[in-house]
Amino acid sequence: MSLRLGAIVDALGGALEGASREAQVHAIAPLQTAGSDALSFLSNPRYQSQLAASQAACVIVGPAMREAALARGACIVAADPYVYFARVTQLWAREHRHEDDQAGIHPSAVVHALAQVHPTARIGPLCVVERGAVIGAHTQLKSRVTVGEHCQLGERCIVHPGVVIGADGFGFAHEAGQWVKIEQLGAVRIGDDVEIGANTCIDRGALGDTVIEDGVKLDNLIQIAHNVHIGRHTAMAGCSAVAGSTKIGAHCTIAGAASIIGHLELADNVHISTNTVVTHSISRPGQYTGVFPMDDNARWEKNAATLRQLHKLRERIKALEQTRKDG
Amino acid sequence: MSLRLGAIVDALGGALEGASREAQVHAIAPLQTAGSDALSFLSNPRYQSQLAASQAACVIVGPAMREAALARGACIVAADPYVYFARVTQLWAREHRHEDDQAGIHPSAVVHALAQVHPTARIGPLCVVERGAVIGAHTQLKSRVTVGEHCQLGERCIVHPGVVIGADGFGFAHEAGQWVKIEQLGAVRIGDDVEIGANTCIDRGALGDTVIEDGVKLDNLIQIAHNVHIGRHTAMAGCSAVAGSTKIGAHCTIAGAASIIGHLELADNVHISTNTVVTHSISRPGQYTGVFPMDDNARWEKNAATLRQLHKLRERIKALEQTRKDG
Amino acid sequence: MSLRLGAIVDALGGALEGASREAQVHAIAPLQTAGSDALSFLSNPRYQSQLAASQAACVIVGPAMREAALARGACIVAADPYVYFARVTQLWAREHRHEDDQAGIHPSAVVHALAQVHPTARIGPLCVVERGAVIGAHTQLKSRVTVGEHCQLGERCIVHPGVVIGADGFGFAHEAGQWVKIEQLGAVRIGDDVEIGANTCIDRGALGDTVIEDGVKLDNLIQIAHNVHIGRHTAMAGCSAVAGSTKIGAHCTIAGAASIIGHLELADNVHISTNTVVTHSISRPGQYTGVFPMDDNARWEKNAATLRQLHKLRERIKALEQTRKDG
Repeated sequence: MSLRLGAIVDALGGALEGASREAQVHAIAPLQTAGSDALSFLSNPRYQSQLAASQAACVIVGPAMREAALARGACIVAADPYVYFARVTQLWAREHRHEDDQAGIHPSAVVHALAQVHPTARIGPLCVVERGAVIGAHTQLKSRVTVGEHCQLGERCIVHPGVVIGADGFGFAHEAGQWVKIEQLGAVRIGDDVEIGANTCIDRGALGDTVIEDGVKLDNLIQIAHNVHIGRHTAMAGCSAVAGSTKIGAHCTIAGAASIIGHLELADNVHISTNTVVTHSISRPGQYTGVFPMDDNARWEKNAATLRQLHKLRERIKALEQTRKDG
Repeated sequence: MSLRLGAIVDALGGALEGASREAQVHAIAPLQTAGSDALSFLSNPRYQSQLAASQAACVIVGPAMREAALARGACIVAADPYVYFARVTQLWAREHRHEDDQAGIHPSAVVHALAQVHPTARIGPLCVVERGAVIGAHTQLKSRVTVGEHCQLGERCIVHPGVVIGADGFGFAHEAGQWVKIEQLGAVRIGDDVEIGANTCIDRGALGDTVIEDGVKLDNLIQIAHNVHIGRHTAMAGCSAVAGSTKIGAHCTIAGAASIIGHLELADNVHISTNTVVTHSISRPGQYTGVFPMDDNARWEKNAATLRQLHKLRERIKALEQTRKDG
Repeated sequence: MSLRLGAIVDALGGALEGASREAQVHAIAPLQTAGSDALSFLSNPRYQSQLAASQAACVIVGPAMREAALARGACIVAADPYVYFARVTQLWAREHRHEDDQAGIHPSAVVHALAQVHPTARIGPLCVVERGAVIGAHTQLKSRVTVGEHCQLGERCIVHPGVVIGADGFGFAHEAGQWVKIEQLGAVRIGDDVEIGANTCIDRGALGDTVIEDGVKLDNLIQIAHNVHIGRHTAMAGCSAVAGSTKIGAHCTIAGAASIIGHLELADNVHISTNTVVTHSISRPGQYTGVFPMDDNARWEKNAATLRQLHKLRERIKALEQTRKDG
């Protein structure tokens, strides 16, 4: 597997310097592990020290690093080296694609006669696409994906194995100590360019639909409950969860294992830290956090025990302050 | 798709007022989004202000709201409007069911010759039902469900896609730095009217069985470890987890992403808040919580740093109190 | 189903006392529930009181418990009774294995012509094994497992239903408010004797590989992100998660629902408590914890509210101390 440097700049722009257009790279690798046949990249100036020492055949750098890169060897100068690197990985994947990645429905998939699958879509092995589901152009269901009745995916979506789109939301009325099922009559509507990680679940709406807007990226093992609405280009990391009817804005990031409870509204550009539990709506952009700091177990035990007395400690401080005032 | 109002009250009781029995509704919708062809409901008196403004063709209300509802238009008066609404969704789903939802084993499912599947059960596409498994009457495995050897499901259960019932529990003995597998020789026994959400896992017992009693409702991506016992009509929300051999009572609710460690016992009517970690047994009904409050990141950082000194702060308060006493 | 006591000690060693080698046991059970046809074990001296009362036909004990055990009835004396018990479960499972557990590829599995599956491996129903994947000797994919392109599993691995090995890691560059996919060009390399629980996900590396060393045990619903490296004989419990490029040492234990953020390094013999969030590297063996202590909801509310003022409380204590000093 290889790419010609000239083919890369022809496809993606940028200026190749210090190497022939005919030179080939046989791998893409980080600066520290790149061999002499590999293309690498420097996106964060913090790692400049790794540049000089790298064995890479060629390094993608920003304009400010051009001199330093040329002092070492060949480089491609690009405005945003990390985005350029991302595009190189796409070029690499495209050049090395197999015929089994072609469009079409794998014979082992179970696709309902009344589902609409675009001819350029790819339905991988052992997927289930139910009645009335719509799969847009160039969208890929990798393998073992379920798309439930009347759920829709837009164009160029990538859905990884084990994903369940359109299972019933978790809705029950309570009657005499028992749960009465609320049938989930809505569906799931997913926009264009959405990527959904392995074993993630997106439930259908109870009455209206669950909505995932264009460009949303969801990692693995995420739970999206019924009637959630996620704004465009929001990204959620693994094991995060959103409870029912919550609306998340555009361009948000939700870090791993964070939870957002139901019936909230988060503004655009809200960033939630790892393992944080969002218990109220957020109207202002910013970074929000709530994580118990890790410690060695013995210290944690002492602090956690004290935490259970925290309100009383506060009363004791108040009393001391009162004494001082009175004294 | 439509339902006749007269057909609804014939099936479910309640008093139809202000509309003809022949009038049709073509949708079920919340008060705020209901169009003039929709049936809606008012279950929480807090939302009474939405009632007057709603375009709904007919609104399900409790007896206390009858006057207010009639002032607006047609209504169905029912003792518990939310339970009535739930039953309407069931009626709706029943009336609009497709022939593909019928009982039977989908040809793509892999069902062992020695599994017992009731003739009224429905085994959906690409399910696996192993040797000796028992699937009760009217139980549905939606698609891509695995039911392991000798595991049993009762009647009228609903199992959503990706569920794994009867994988091995996580049991190992430790010997000279390596793990020695404890074969998991028990099974999983699930009662009647249990619903299990997408990609949820219920492990088989090590020696005895893992038990899920009648009427339990489990949401998506839940982990139930080996030898857990969950009492009847308990409900667990998405991403919650129960470690090995813990016994949860009846009529409990476990909110999303809550964790319960192993070998505990929870009484009936215990309610665990979202993301709470239950580390000791609970013998009294009530609501239990342990969540780090979210804050903006800068404030969180200060408070979290102080939290790591909390025990020392307490000592400082004690010292101050001693000074006061001595002074 | 039964085992002869003589066959057990012939296979596993240990000294059978107080019973005939010809005696049969028909079950393996804990001391408290064992019937008179069952083999049981006492591994923790704390439970010695259960020994005398047990109905078990025979009890596995350590040398120190031999007298107490013989006073009750038959026993097998073994150096480590818990490891011996584990081996008995293995013997039991081996003796009662069905022909459907034999090696080979189930006809419903989708295995690429260019995948390498060892003839002694077992690929269960509805698994997907992609181009270039390698499945080592005696390794079992139970059912509905996906092994992606060029991913490798060693020998004697057990992979439970719903596992996804080799989905794309979650990698994107950010450009003008949108996400640009970084194609994930690495794979997953898994050593020998690794067990992977139901619906767990192990992502392929971005450039290099994600690596799981020999003897690692992963429970259900775990997320292993791209380029993670897990050292040999480390065990992770259900719902735990490791973010990208983190390296975990050998012989670690990660308890349920714990999270480890990306780009960290954990030394060997590090033990992380349940639900703890690891936010920095750990260079020393030990037990590490960070969990908000559960309380009844009313007390939690007061303490959590005070926690949001904790830094200010510390300032107030400082002020009081200053007053004392000045006074």
